[in-house]
Amino acid sequence: MAKVAILGAGLMGTAMAWPLADNRHSVNLIGTHLDDAVIAGCKEKRFHSRLGRTLPESVEAYYFSEIDRALEGCEIIVSGVNSLGVSWMARQLGLRAKPGQSVIGITKGLEVGESGEVRLFPNVLKAGLPESIRDRVDFAAIGGPCIAGELAGRRPTCVMLGAENIQTAEKLAKVFATSYYFPRPTDDLVGLEVGVALKNAYTLAVGMAYGQLEKAGGIDEAGASMHNLAAALFAEGCTEIRKILKLLGSEERLASGLPGAGDLYVTSMGGRTVRFGRLLGMGKGFKEARAIMAGDTLECIEIVKCMGALTPAWRERELLRDGDLPLMDALVDIIVNDSRRPLPLGEFFRA
Amino acid sequence: MAKVAILGAGLMGTAMAWPLADNRHSVNLIGTHLDDAVIAGCKEKRFHSRLGRTLPESVEAYYFSEIDRALEGCEIIVSGVNSLGVSWMARQLGLRAKPGQSVIGITKGLEVGESGEVRLFPNVLKAGLPESIRDRVDFAAIGGPCIAGELAGRRPTCVMLGAENIQTAEKLAKVFATSYYFPRPTDDLVGLEVGVALKNAYTLAVGMAYGQLEKAGGIDEAGASMHNLAAALFAEGCTEIRKILKLLGSEERLASGLPGAGDLYVTSMGGRTVRFGRLLGMGKGFKEARAIMAGDTLECIEIVKCMGALTPAWRERELLRDGDLPLMDALVDIIVNDSRRPLPLGEFFRA
Repeated sequence: MAKVAILGAGLMGTAMAWPLADNRHSVNLIGTHLDDAVIAGCKEKRFHSRLGRTLPESVEAYYFSEIDRALEGCEIIVSGVNSLGVSWMARQLGLRAKPGQSVIGITKGLEVGESGEVRLFPNVLKAGLPESIRDRVDFAAIGGPCIAGELAGRRPTCVMLGAENIQTAEKLAKVFATSYYFPRPTDDLVGLEVGVALKNAYTLAVGMAYGQLEKAGGIDEAGASMHNLAAALFAEGCTEIRKILKLLGSEERLASGLPGAGDLYVTSMGGRTVRFGRLLGMGKGFKEARAIMAGDTLECIEIVKCMGALTPAWRERELLRDGDLPLMDALVDIIVNDSRRPLPLGEFFRA
Repeated sequence: MAKVAILGAGLMGTAMAWPLADNRHSVNLIGTHLDDAVIAGCKEKRFHSRLGRTLPESVEAYYFSEIDRALEGCEIIVSGVNSLGVSWMARQLGLRAKPGQSVIGITKGLEVGESGEVRLFPNVLKAGLPESIRDRVDFAAIGGPCIAGELAGRRPTCVMLGAENIQTAEKLAKVFATSYYFPRPTDDLVGLEVGVALKNAYTLAVGMAYGQLEKAGGIDEAGASMHNLAAALFAEGCTEIRKILKLLGSEERLASGLPGAGDLYVTSMGGRTVRFGRLLGMGKGFKEARAIMAGDTLECIEIVKCMGALTPAWRERELLRDGDLPLMDALVDIIVNDSRRPLPLGEFFRA
């Protein structure tokens, strides 16, 4: 049985405690400096207020101020922050990671490097470590269609667990696998991370369909919604994810699997990204929509901005031709340039 | 402007009249012998009762008894029957098709040939023609995420229009294309037809997730549904469609496009296939569930049976290995053998 620390007591980080606890690992759940209130509840009543659930028995909650004690003897550290917390996490790990440990990220997103290259979050975390131990810590990531509340409710869930070498991925998958949680190991870390990051952008587009429906007066007198439009945006999203994975030398097939189609499906079933897309589809400009949802973390905006920085570099290097990513180009225009141009349906599904 | 006949006045066949009429083609909507009541309504009030819509002006409705007059001078015939009517349609075309005409099928499904090969519906229709004219009639098919009521409501819709040669597909796509209807031409007729047929089978699986939710007592006290499970089944469905298209020498990429992910999405948004899957997920056996929905046309059952006949032949020819299609194998077992085995989530997403 392993000793595992989860750093970050948000929904998804905390939910990872359930399969770990059910596998009889001991779990230290460490809040960030933003999590003090929720950790207080965990300590007092063993109840996580945001998840709305009582913690499993083998989980101990710690304030951020207790981090050094909480990390003692841990073989595995789950990085449970969102994309805005990745640099912070890199600093924490830089101060505290030890040779032989494994770090598993659950954050969805990407960074753009200085020469216009894709930087995966596991690599951002790795770069935070002192050079002397950087290659003696394993980095991995989990992604795929996983609503945190369902995992913590022990509802059946399939995800992918990626690492640069398959043995690491397989070893870690065994730590997490239960009768309801199925982490499929892969060594295609790029495909996994890029796929799950992109789905936030394309879910925005699916949400826009339902905003357009609202703008058009809703379901019509004969019962017609706009599922056809949503489906076209969904499929163009999967198609563009496939093209981007191919361009990055990754496995195209992941676009029709968990990181592409699967994660796009689950995210489209509701939540902030769809709500934000709906506002855009109703005809609000980006700035207006952002103001309406001020205070909400919207990973979709970050990834679209990221693609706005990456795609010109890819075009310059002739990895991408004009018209290859019509939907992403439109999303970049809407988010980065605050444009209100209609979605270019006639450009979709060429080659 | 072309003269177009639609044979079969069901939802989807009739909906095709809208883009055609908006492109100023004249449209003769011909009911089958089962459509007399709905055609009577179209003749008397210009109202299609099942679609709940008034027909566009340039559409004329005809009883099946008037077919010969209605087909006079038509350059294009849309075959608007469901999969149970394809042999009937082949006979009608055999009696009436003329050299130079184009026949476009909208039926979703497949047949298994005598030597265990896949037979596409356009080829079944073609085989119904006298040999003397068989190669002088063009055959094409339309597929993709298209709820009929939305098309007739002029809601934005993207589909694929496939024919054996791309020129035919491009020519016909122009006949149908409007500002709300986007038929993308393709010469991958196999990928298109197999993709849209398979999505009915895999939508059944998505429906099963929500049946399992019901069986587990519904949304739990902390708000957890079973979208993670539905997403895993959705993604495994797209993954298996991709494998099957590859096996047939078709374009894998369609699995993440309109015939795969797109059509699976729209079908999963509700309807008979999802309802039937829900019954199975609740723990009803196939026969019990079929009895509950007696009288409903369920294309998903036909395609699963079809795959039950095809996959053993593919295995024998070593086109398929054991474990390549774990979800389809389970569906075949449930439908053909009336088994109640759990879905093999642990087998998904291998290779």
